[in-house]
Amino acid sequence: MKYTAHINIMPLKELLDPQGKAVSNSLHNLGLTNVQGVRVGKHVTMQVEAATADAAEKTAHEACKKLLANQVMEGFELTITEG
Amino acid sequence: MKYTAHINIMPLKELLDPQGKAVSNSLHNLGLTNVQGVRVGKHVTMQVEAATADAAEKTAHEACKKLLANQVMEGFELTITEG
Repeated sequence: MKYTAHINIMPLKELLDPQGKAVSNSLHNLGLTNVQGVRVGKHVTMQVEAATADAAEKTAHEACKKLLANQVMEGFELTITEG
Repeated sequence: MKYTAHINIMPLKELLDPQGKAVSNSLHNLGLTNVQGVRVGKHVTMQVEAATADAAEKTAHEACKKLLANQVMEGFELTITEG
């Protein structure tokens, strides 16, 4: 059965997020001064062929651990949908 | 009132996603051969000070249009949560 994994990989909250800081400053320069605490990470989607949703989640979790997330500096969260 | 915008910025489906292709090949080399159609984009979160959720959404939408998304090659979707 085909599942879709929706993965967010974000810098750990404790770490400085220079990219987020840069985006925040640019938004303020564009007049959007009511925006704070910008954090920038990766959003990854993938199709997973698996017997069950749990099996698909396991595969996506493994993909994050092995490749997508740098566990020293990033955390990840993932959701699985059918199709 | 403080809201959080959760924004996903992804390459348009019609376009080739070389980064996604590279991730897909790497995952196959790592033994995760049941993964296809990997797409890689950005996930941005930000705190927005606004009177209502609609006003916060408008600000986040403007941030995407003005800065975060390259409208020629990317699409974006956003959700607003309280706090």
